[in-house]
Amino acid sequence: MIRIGLVGAGRIAQVHARTVEAHPTAELTFIADPMEAAVKPLAEKYGVRYSLNPDDVFTDSEVDAVIICSPTPLHVEHILKAAKAGKPALCEKPVAMETAKVEELMESLKGLDYTTMIGFNRRFDPTFARMHKMVEDGVVGKVEQVTIISRDPAAPPKEYIAVSGGIFKDMTIHDFDTARFFLGDIVSVYAVGQNLDPELADTGDFDGAVITLTNSEGAIATITNSRHCSSGYDQRLEVFGDKATINGDNLRSTQVRVSNGEHTDAKDVYLDFFLERYEEAYAHELNEFFAAISENRKPATSIEDGAKALRIAEAAEESARTGKIVYL
Amino acid sequence: MIRIGLVGAGRIAQVHARTVEAHPTAELTFIADPMEAAVKPLAEKYGVRYSLNPDDVFTDSEVDAVIICSPTPLHVEHILKAAKAGKPALCEKPVAMETAKVEELMESLKGLDYTTMIGFNRRFDPTFARMHKMVEDGVVGKVEQVTIISRDPAAPPKEYIAVSGGIFKDMTIHDFDTARFFLGDIVSVYAVGQNLDPELADTGDFDGAVITLTNSEGAIATITNSRHCSSGYDQRLEVFGDKATINGDNLRSTQVRVSNGEHTDAKDVYLDFFLERYEEAYAHELNEFFAAISENRKPATSIEDGAKALRIAEAAEESARTGKIVYL
Amino acid sequence: MIRIGLVGAGRIAQVHARTVEAHPTAELTFIADPMEAAVKPLAEKYGVRYSLNPDDVFTDSEVDAVIICSPTPLHVEHILKAAKAGKPALCEKPVAMETAKVEELMESLKGLDYTTMIGFNRRFDPTFARMHKMVEDGVVGKVEQVTIISRDPAAPPKEYIAVSGGIFKDMTIHDFDTARFFLGDIVSVYAVGQNLDPELADTGDFDGAVITLTNSEGAIATITNSRHCSSGYDQRLEVFGDKATINGDNLRSTQVRVSNGEHTDAKDVYLDFFLERYEEAYAHELNEFFAAISENRKPATSIEDGAKALRIAEAAEESARTGKIVYL
Amino acid sequence: MIRIGLVGAGRIAQVHARTVEAHPTAELTFIADPMEAAVKPLAEKYGVRYSLNPDDVFTDSEVDAVIICSPTPLHVEHILKAAKAGKPALCEKPVAMETAKVEELMESLKGLDYTTMIGFNRRFDPTFARMHKMVEDGVVGKVEQVTIISRDPAAPPKEYIAVSGGIFKDMTIHDFDTARFFLGDIVSVYAVGQNLDPELADTGDFDGAVITLTNSEGAIATITNSRHCSSGYDQRLEVFGDKATINGDNLRSTQVRVSNGEHTDAKDVYLDFFLERYEEAYAHELNEFFAAISENRKPATSIEDGAKALRIAEAAEESARTGKIVYL
Repeated sequence: MIRIGLVGAGRIAQVHARTVEAHPTAELTFIADPMEAAVKPLAEKYGVRYSLNPDDVFTDSEVDAVIICSPTPLHVEHILKAAKAGKPALCEKPVAMETAKVEELMESLKGLDYTTMIGFNRRFDPTFARMHKMVEDGVVGKVEQVTIISRDPAAPPKEYIAVSGGIFKDMTIHDFDTARFFLGDIVSVYAVGQNLDPELADTGDFDGAVITLTNSEGAIATITNSRHCSSGYDQRLEVFGDKATINGDNLRSTQVRVSNGEHTDAKDVYLDFFLERYEEAYAHELNEFFAAISENRKPATSIEDGAKALRIAEAAEESARTGKIVYL
Repeated sequence: MIRIGLVGAGRIAQVHARTVEAHPTAELTFIADPMEAAVKPLAEKYGVRYSLNPDDVFTDSEVDAVIICSPTPLHVEHILKAAKAGKPALCEKPVAMETAKVEELMESLKGLDYTTMIGFNRRFDPTFARMHKMVEDGVVGKVEQVTIISRDPAAPPKEYIAVSGGIFKDMTIHDFDTARFFLGDIVSVYAVGQNLDPELADTGDFDGAVITLTNSEGAIATITNSRHCSSGYDQRLEVFGDKATINGDNLRSTQVRVSNGEHTDAKDVYLDFFLERYEEAYAHELNEFFAAISENRKPATSIEDGAKALRIAEAAEESARTGKIVYL
Repeated sequence: MIRIGLVGAGRIAQVHARTVEAHPTAELTFIADPMEAAVKPLAEKYGVRYSLNPDDVFTDSEVDAVIICSPTPLHVEHILKAAKAGKPALCEKPVAMETAKVEELMESLKGLDYTTMIGFNRRFDPTFARMHKMVEDGVVGKVEQVTIISRDPAAPPKEYIAVSGGIFKDMTIHDFDTARFFLGDIVSVYAVGQNLDPELADTGDFDGAVITLTNSEGAIATITNSRHCSSGYDQRLEVFGDKATINGDNLRSTQVRVSNGEHTDAKDVYLDFFLERYEEAYAHELNEFFAAISENRKPATSIEDGAKALRIAEAAEESARTGKIVYL
Repeated sequence: MIRIGLVGAGRIAQVHARTVEAHPTAELTFIADPMEAAVKPLAEKYGVRYSLNPDDVFTDSEVDAVIICSPTPLHVEHILKAAKAGKPALCEKPVAMETAKVEELMESLKGLDYTTMIGFNRRFDPTFARMHKMVEDGVVGKVEQVTIISRDPAAPPKEYIAVSGGIFKDMTIHDFDTARFFLGDIVSVYAVGQNLDPELADTGDFDGAVITLTNSEGAIATITNSRHCSSGYDQRLEVFGDKATINGDNLRSTQVRVSNGEHTDAKDVYLDFFLERYEEAYAHELNEFFAAISENRKPATSIEDGAKALRIAEAAEESARTGKIVYL
């Protein structure tokens, strides 16, 4: 059993705690979060020890590996502490708010034999993972065009947007990773931002965007984002190749269709948000983390992946602000 | 060019007239119907001769073949006249109201070299025809179970029901032919009739029914009928075999899907009724008729097919009235 | 916390054990099964006590409620023991192999204040439950026709069929309950059995069937069964009413569609069998059992429901053997 | 009856000829094309007069209106002749190869009371027209993002590409008009071209492209084009608004779905190309042309529409060649 220490006791930490507890080869042993009101009940729920000092996780002798769910500004510090402590770490995305910070981190990590996985959960979603496998298996042929539609059901509170780093870093970052998942490294970025929601006007952030990415072989990915979507969390992916086109559709809570005098075969609205839509993905992500530890290998998503997605996010922001294409 | 004489000037005659006129190898030359108000404008529309005496069609020297759209009670007489005149005939279903009449007809036809096709248009519907081809091509394997859902958008006027011969002869007759199209000859019939619509109660006819048919090899067809359906003309077919299951879906006027806060991927209601739903089928039916004439061969659907569908309809009526299985 | 004792350690017991362990208001405390090779590892996995004598579950003071997963011939005895011990019981279907046995059981239970739930899991499937809710909410209007397609991916071993009670009791029993879920009590049964699979010929059982059921208001349900289906576990339901038609579709492991030169929008095959297809249903079934206990009320499915489904199964067998309709 | 003269006897002229002949308020009277081998059989098929001199159409006293299907370089000249002759004209897209030519044309037309419609057939496709109506009816709310997927089944011959004006003028021109149909005037254009097909490398043209368009209100349209698609002519449209998302799907020749051990619900490949896919659209386009003539009003698509789509095509070419955004 891999003994897990959790840094953070917020919403995503709670998801991971539950998944760890249900996992056959891992168990939760320790949780640390400065907010006692959050960490105490979570620790009690699973009958594990807790601390108000996150650093304790990295030094605890009964913690084999850590899952870092601290606020983004602390990610770099926590990744480094885990690496120095010789404890494999899974860190939520994004690695940092700026590429420069990630580069500093990578510099600091040089020479250390560390295992760090970045939580790009969508790579582990059964639908997207299956599509990636189909590409690897040659079903699609040469990938030429990737179309990503990614819309949130509703905008987050303005307070969140104020500190989130903006739409490209808090929302599109996942889509940038998905684009890289299918196209590899990106060489050019063109983004158009939208300010359509008057409620969000004074955040200074975009509430919609379309981004065009190219790789060095001339394949193109388009990402269409919105902070809102009337029918729920809209998460679709199309991969077009010379042999086939494959599509990943939205998930619904049931398989009911309704036909009446107004319409036919009407389905449920989409699963509402990421905890529901990517529930299985989070579990498979942990599977990969635990498997990488057991097999003593690098996990599927690295700090480099985090750095590259972040670099695209910065380029998208620059492109949307200047109206120019940014080359990486 | 095959010169066509039309017996009847009603709704289905108008459909055939238009299709004939648009056909590259046939042309309309003559229409006969005792109702001048119907036949005159139709004849003028296409610039052809007309008569108020249906018999004239069978003797006209410029008529190569006839399409019989007269009322059902006249079908037998008109088929016989066409056969004696040596003119190939396409006759709308049903051949007659009673099997006994069809048997008399077949007796009278003995020794004559006639070409008569019965208008079981659904066999020529692109979707159903393709499914049949798949069965012939072995895609489905051995056919084991056929499921037919067939519902009209709304009940016909009571006056129609009073003379139609009842649901099994006016509506299910098509489904019986579809069952035979996929299963061949039927050996047992069990029908349950429904009287759910109080408006139709005093017609003495059923307004819904479920019929179970078997063939001599143990394959089963179920037919589910209703005189009404909230979302339009509901015409679906499933053929289940040991290698595959194939489904034929309803048609819609557009390919639009709507997603909003209530539902997702909601499609149009179905094409409303048979003239719309089977528009292509009617055209392909005429193609087959004209092709059979040109190639001097028997058409795909014969008087025998009409007789057998009618025999099943009678058995269904008997079964629904007595609560007993009827063996053919 | 409701402390659960499990009778049986087989496949379905393992499903329930896992669900109980993950449940917030229940916990597993005891497992009994005469097969040490089965019960010991299961008990060890969850760190609970075990016994080779099933009767121990009913007398154990730390067991609040029992889940009966013993072989069908023992169900009646175990239900009675739980009732006498004052422990609420969830018993897998069918209650018994013959209606007579269930009637004896109900006689014996008279005067006892017992809580027994029968495991008709499909009522708790999110798709079917939602459809039932729609009917209750008036979305469908008056229910007129119910169409159930229910096909297993592959036939069970002959050894299983030899003791299963036959297709109607081991497989269709669920569909009979689904029909009752939507139509209430059934008054007539007509069944046609099929013997299409030569491999199963010497079992004397049917390997396919179509059953027509009616209720006292003239609504009809048809059930189409097969022991095999090329594309997996085929579980579909259509409820047709005067206001709407609602359909419940099959489940798949991903939402991928593939389009190429052969076909378009091709989806995954169906989830293979009942443990996968009804995984959520099993969990919701336990929710209902625990909720009924907590709220001190009768659970949603009763011994009477079990008895009635069994009675229909016997009627179907009789109908298929004699070729006659059976009235209940 | 509106008497129609046809300029050109090629593939699209044949489509129009057939539609005119079947139309209740129009009839074909004259065809002109310098290629006798093309014009003679077409004229004979419909029993109309013909000439080898296109100019004869504009002077013929029995021609009320003309349909211009001549090669693109002749469009401007023919539109002008029709306008001067006082004959309403429907001209195939594009109006010309360069915006400058169209501007000259519009200059020449000043002061004339002419009726010219440009054949942007997709606006008349039942699916796209219905989507546009939904937008007008407020179903979608404010339109924010339009996603157009438009892929040909296979690349045209190199000889065609050499004179076609390139992908943006021969193929995307339709998509630019669709974008304008939903977003109105476009203010910025960013295009990325692809050269993925080695067979087409020496044409100097792109064989795939992604174009991002914005309007003055900040709405965005993306167009994804390819010269090839394994599953046929891929023509999809999504319109996302704050109240609903609506999608227009591909058309197929039947409604068959196939489920077997490999996949489920696999549908037919798409209708292969524009004559099949937009067959109904061509008919509705003529309806609009004839209706505009009868009602003495401007048709739905004007030379200005043609000019604006062409201007976007030129901007896209410039953007794809320079890697810069082009503002209109």
